[in-house]
Amino acid sequence: MNAAVIMAGGSGTRFWPKSTKSYPKQFQRLFGEKTMLQETADRLEGFVDPDNIMVVTNKNYLPIVRNQLPDARDEFLIGEPVAKNTAPCVAAAAALLYREDPDSVMIVLPADHRIGRPDKFQEVLDCAVRTAKGKECLVTIGIEPAHPETGYGYIKYDQSAETVDYGMSSFRVDSFTEKPNLKKAKAFLESGNYLWNSGMFVWKSEVILKAFERYMPELYQLTQTLIRSNGSAEDINRFYKACPSVSIDYGIMEKAEEVEVLPGRFDWSDVGSWTAVHELSEKDSDGNVTGDVPVSMKGSTGNLVQSESGKLVALVGVDNLAVVETENAILVVNLEKAQDVKKVVEDLKSDPDKKKYL
Amino acid sequence: MNAAVIMAGGSGTRFWPKSTKSYPKQFQRLFGEKTMLQETADRLEGFVDPDNIMVVTNKNYLPIVRNQLPDARDEFLIGEPVAKNTAPCVAAAAALLYREDPDSVMIVLPADHRIGRPDKFQEVLDCAVRTAKGKECLVTIGIEPAHPETGYGYIKYDQSAETVDYGMSSFRVDSFTEKPNLKKAKAFLESGNYLWNSGMFVWKSEVILKAFERYMPELYQLTQTLIRSNGSAEDINRFYKACPSVSIDYGIMEKAEEVEVLPGRFDWSDVGSWTAVHELSEKDSDGNVTGDVPVSMKGSTGNLVQSESGKLVALVGVDNLAVVETENAILVVNLEKAQDVKKVVEDLKSDPDKKKYL
Repeated sequence: MNAAVIMAGGSGTRFWPKSTKSYPKQFQRLFGEKTMLQETADRLEGFVDPDNIMVVTNKNYLPIVRNQLPDARDEFLIGEPVAKNTAPCVAAAAALLYREDPDSVMIVLPADHRIGRPDKFQEVLDCAVRTAKGKECLVTIGIEPAHPETGYGYIKYDQSAETVDYGMSSFRVDSFTEKPNLKKAKAFLESGNYLWNSGMFVWKSEVILKAFERYMPELYQLTQTLIRSNGSAEDINRFYKACPSVSIDYGIMEKAEEVEVLPGRFDWSDVGSWTAVHELSEKDSDGNVTGDVPVSMKGSTGNLVQSESGKLVALVGVDNLAVVETENAILVVNLEKAQDVKKVVEDLKSDPDKKKYL
Repeated sequence: MNAAVIMAGGSGTRFWPKSTKSYPKQFQRLFGEKTMLQETADRLEGFVDPDNIMVVTNKNYLPIVRNQLPDARDEFLIGEPVAKNTAPCVAAAAALLYREDPDSVMIVLPADHRIGRPDKFQEVLDCAVRTAKGKECLVTIGIEPAHPETGYGYIKYDQSAETVDYGMSSFRVDSFTEKPNLKKAKAFLESGNYLWNSGMFVWKSEVILKAFERYMPELYQLTQTLIRSNGSAEDINRFYKACPSVSIDYGIMEKAEEVEVLPGRFDWSDVGSWTAVHELSEKDSDGNVTGDVPVSMKGSTGNLVQSESGKLVALVGVDNLAVVETENAILVVNLEKAQDVKKVVEDLKSDPDKKKYL
């Protein structure tokens, strides 16, 4: 069977006040009708039956996930008792899927990415699934870099080791790299053999388990216990308590030998801030993004407005701002300083009188 | 008796969304605890008994005035059926006060001005009242100009015609001028014999009625009818229906001969926009004015925040903005473009779907 593992554990602070600890980004409608989790699930249509979509998230978010993906199977909603980065998440999911079907193919996707052309994504995904089924390898989807981004990791690939087995080029991965500085990022772009690391992977559960056996043997042992268990919440808890906090990139991808990368040529973003929401949204002729909010804009360009209160939002003579209203806060942020929203969250955390606004 | 006539008829659009047609600026708390009308009345303490304060306003605003000035006499709350500028307002008030006491002195004040040093204002007011009682003249309070403002009218005075009858200098007025352009305003400032026209006047009701007799004889006839009437709402309505729409400056002050001006040396503003509210308010060390609003300010200076919803307002990396939240709207305006708030109001007036936000 084809299964998906949507990693939805994040609890970011960059989208305050909309994204909060109790309702983080991946469960929010940042772009319109659907939440990011729902959009991620929708992109799997035709590849994975809705009841074969597994979601791994903090256990506190399980009711939200159930609500947003009503077709999901209860035993496929994995509540992490504690965040342990991506390797344990992938390992637990692989164990539970292997337990169900040793031939299962896993499509691993972060829940909070934005993809501009779902059709182009699905072309690559199709090839990735065929590749993962056709040979014993780990497949990752890289993104043709659009600019020398310093906020993403990169994948270096070997252009000479190209294969065109399933209608698209795939390449042997040379190495995974950390987020570069600007100079390095520019050099990566110029060299032409780097892709952005999207964190999207496709592999057979059997193959990734073999990789854990080789590169993270202790975690592998825990997967074997989980495979033999009932897969209950207590079994999951026991697994998470025992396992280390390591990323799949560091724990497996950087070390594994048989890694193939497929270059994705679609718009993609990990939506790291309000700036990205503005960039990725459809704009009016003044570059403003206002969605369904009633607005009156006078001499104002390049702004993002989000509010669900029904209030009119009027912007006069202001440019490049995000104005976000929620039930208990109003944020006005310069889109060039959007990363500083986390400073507000720190402020609220440290002030007992203001904690209620988190 | 000493009486005051507070002119509170304005229905400005420059303080939307806080100031609305149904609750304009003079009835708003733009600066703190008290409304501008209440602050205007408070400044008269020691000069005028609370029940000798007359308020002239649009008849729709009478309930607001009654609520904000509970000590006011009902027959001294004059409801205009239609706005006819300041000359009819002064004429009606003069008639009603003359009817009550032919020796009455009228202190005429706009309801929506901000005065920084009430003690200094009262020094000038004291001298103005003595001057108006001591000789048959019209007294106006001018303001030492602080900068070449193009938004105010100016009073040219004759420095050689100085008298120091009541402890302060007063001067014979040479002429009243319209709002100048910047070049003219600068020349006015340099010449040293111009003052800002504050729209504050002191005179005996008998003396201003004589001036109406001479310069606006038709309006004078209407005052005589009003003096002989009961001063009922119907009498007022009849008066307003018949009278022309003319300012007291144009109708009387620019023509009258015996006009004295007293230079006021206190901070004064007609509070023409959100910019003025910011300028006239106490600021924190970053130049922000936030009052009682819960805020989190990160790298943000020179802003004005007003909200009564209890929501946290967070500003990140933004300067010189006004952020104003009311029950049905949020305004974010560049303080250098605050005059353009009226464009929002025009927008809302012309759009049937948005009228509810006015």
